[in-house]
Amino acid sequence: MTKILAINAGSSTLKWKLFSMPDETVIASGLVDRLNLPGSIFTVKQPGAEEFQETKDNIDYHLAAAMVLSHLKEAGIVHHLHEITGIGHRIVAGGETFTDSTVVTDQVLQQIRDLAQYAPLHNPIEAEYIHIFQELLPDAHQVAVFDTSLYTKMPKINALYPIPYEYYQQYGARKYGAHGTSHRYVANRAAEILGKPLSELKMITLHLGSGSSVSAFNHGKVIDTSMGFTPLAGVMMGTRSGDIDPSLVAFLAEKMSVNMDEMITILNNKSGLLGVSQLSPDQRDLEEAEAKNPQAKLALDMFANRVVRYIGTYVAELNGLDALVFTAGSGENGIGMRQRIADQLSYFGVRIDQDRNNVRGKERIISPDDAPVTVMVVPTNEELMIARDVQRLTQHHNVL
Amino acid sequence: MTKILAINAGSSTLKWKLFSMPDETVIASGLVDRLNLPGSIFTVKQPGAEEFQETKDNIDYHLAAAMVLSHLKEAGIVHHLHEITGIGHRIVAGGETFTDSTVVTDQVLQQIRDLAQYAPLHNPIEAEYIHIFQELLPDAHQVAVFDTSLYTKMPKINALYPIPYEYYQQYGARKYGAHGTSHRYVANRAAEILGKPLSELKMITLHLGSGSSVSAFNHGKVIDTSMGFTPLAGVMMGTRSGDIDPSLVAFLAEKMSVNMDEMITILNNKSGLLGVSQLSPDQRDLEEAEAKNPQAKLALDMFANRVVRYIGTYVAELNGLDALVFTAGSGENGIGMRQRIADQLSYFGVRIDQDRNNVRGKERIISPDDAPVTVMVVPTNEELMIARDVQRLTQHHNVL
Repeated sequence: MTKILAINAGSSTLKWKLFSMPDETVIASGLVDRLNLPGSIFTVKQPGAEEFQETKDNIDYHLAAAMVLSHLKEAGIVHHLHEITGIGHRIVAGGETFTDSTVVTDQVLQQIRDLAQYAPLHNPIEAEYIHIFQELLPDAHQVAVFDTSLYTKMPKINALYPIPYEYYQQYGARKYGAHGTSHRYVANRAAEILGKPLSELKMITLHLGSGSSVSAFNHGKVIDTSMGFTPLAGVMMGTRSGDIDPSLVAFLAEKMSVNMDEMITILNNKSGLLGVSQLSPDQRDLEEAEAKNPQAKLALDMFANRVVRYIGTYVAELNGLDALVFTAGSGENGIGMRQRIADQLSYFGVRIDQDRNNVRGKERIISPDDAPVTVMVVPTNEELMIARDVQRLTQHHNVL
Repeated sequence: MTKILAINAGSSTLKWKLFSMPDETVIASGLVDRLNLPGSIFTVKQPGAEEFQETKDNIDYHLAAAMVLSHLKEAGIVHHLHEITGIGHRIVAGGETFTDSTVVTDQVLQQIRDLAQYAPLHNPIEAEYIHIFQELLPDAHQVAVFDTSLYTKMPKINALYPIPYEYYQQYGARKYGAHGTSHRYVANRAAEILGKPLSELKMITLHLGSGSSVSAFNHGKVIDTSMGFTPLAGVMMGTRSGDIDPSLVAFLAEKMSVNMDEMITILNNKSGLLGVSQLSPDQRDLEEAEAKNPQAKLALDMFANRVVRYIGTYVAELNGLDALVFTAGSGENGIGMRQRIADQLSYFGVRIDQDRNNVRGKERIISPDDAPVTVMVVPTNEELMIARDVQRLTQHHNVL
């Protein structure tokens, strides 16, 4: 038995989960929030125990990591820190360099830093955390788990854009995708639940949260995904536009006398459900308002429509469909949204059973038994996928 | 019997066709090419007669129009110019103002000019031609036929973008579509051939040429189209990218130190089939090269894929499909491309018969008799659609 720590770091948050492997039990999990701000919050949860919380000003990345490890020892969650044999880090951008998760070497760490142009807000911080944990736990294996690696081997016809080919060669202009760890987890888990190998299925996975993406699995291989060169593309999201006419970006920038960076920020932060509804990026708020607020209803209808469009696109690319899998915030909990989406897909054999669909955050098949397409809810578990990758890539080093 | 002139004007070309109505016979047609350049070329075709051609330097818009009318009289194609009772003009941008073709009044002419922001290269010239023909033939009715009017009544969920709602209200940021006159013609003609009213059909029309677009007709109403705020969006085209991640536009502009306008020009003129193949925007050139040139093959495969994606999108939005209609250059003549597209759509019940598909530029059903979806080639005829609109909107004025 080994303990593996899964790290999901953002610019202002550090999320973590400690697993016992290979049994995959969660030993503890936590969040350090409001990093580098007054009133940073340090929280730890343990199954069966009361939540631990501490507030402290300006916790920085190094202190956050150190506090996590100290707490694990002080609270008796681990006896010795060397019980943690591996640490897995979610990395946003792996470019075409990383086609799978990988054990971190000096070269790997440098490559993650070099890929910062594709994720300027994420990769540098994620690289920093790897470095910090290397110093704090020098004997543990560090493993980088890329959100993009799942998509590196997509067929070129889907990975490339219809732009001058030299932009791909010179600037790496291609579709990298995102949420790969989530799609990978739920696709594999859905196949398990169906009792069939993923390699025998045509499956569409719907990661619908504040960020949303859709992926198509053809007999075990990802053939397409809705996220693009960046996570701005694809379906409409909470505050992101998803796909729009590129000319419109230039037109609006000129109309409003803003530069391109400002325009892209608007498309990332002020668009999507929030932009259309002028109310909230949260589907729950909009569902509450829609009976009396036509723009809230429009935003929800547009969201469902954009998901339906991508499902149609991928049914075409797959030339068939066996299973449709909902995951992430709205996918796992949005009973109404799942119904709204499924109602438009009867031609594809997609049907859901109203009683079965009355579920939040639990694994369940929600289509009737005789439906041609199996529709499922599978809560995502990126941290577990990360821990599994650490286990897979380091187990021959870790015979305890 | 009346004679109606259909005008399709671009920045450097004036295309025209003279119809006898209501029998819809083509009396003559012509092209004035290389306008405002040395060596402008004036050409006229008459059924059963030799082509007339004249070369002259720097023919401008006014002279071009005057030469067309003079030739019609001098060549005896009409006895008197007042036999031409109506002139229909194709207008690229009608905004939300024009939900149908319309008889031109002073106000309409001004509105066409005011809509220039949506088609800066087209509307001003088209307005100028209306004015010129008003002066040359003051007794004829001028009718404006908008490429966009078909799409003005699309459901809001498809017409609007997931961006701040106020951009729609303030700047008219929405999907306007394009090629509407062509889609309208072929959809109606396809329904005639099928012997069913368009109002009973779920139909996807594929206008595949150097510019390409896909439209979805649900029981007689257009519900969606691939062209966007501008004709840059949608499927991949000869030199246009179609849809791409908006972030990529900003990223590439920065990498290459070009401004947004230059970036949009690259996406319009150097992308698509030309950009990917680095060889040609013409599918015929690429088909010739693809056996030995992987990028030519990639470009063709990507084009077929982007069309297939939109078909999937619209089958989902229509929640069904009765007929798939190919038109325009590649749609009417691209035997191989039609096969390439149809081969990927068997799950939707799309099949084509190889012998029937061996046709160029002729109306034909190319699916087997027992196929669930009827696949057809219907050559487009925008000029006839224009002439019909002139007839429809002016016939009660024109009892000769």
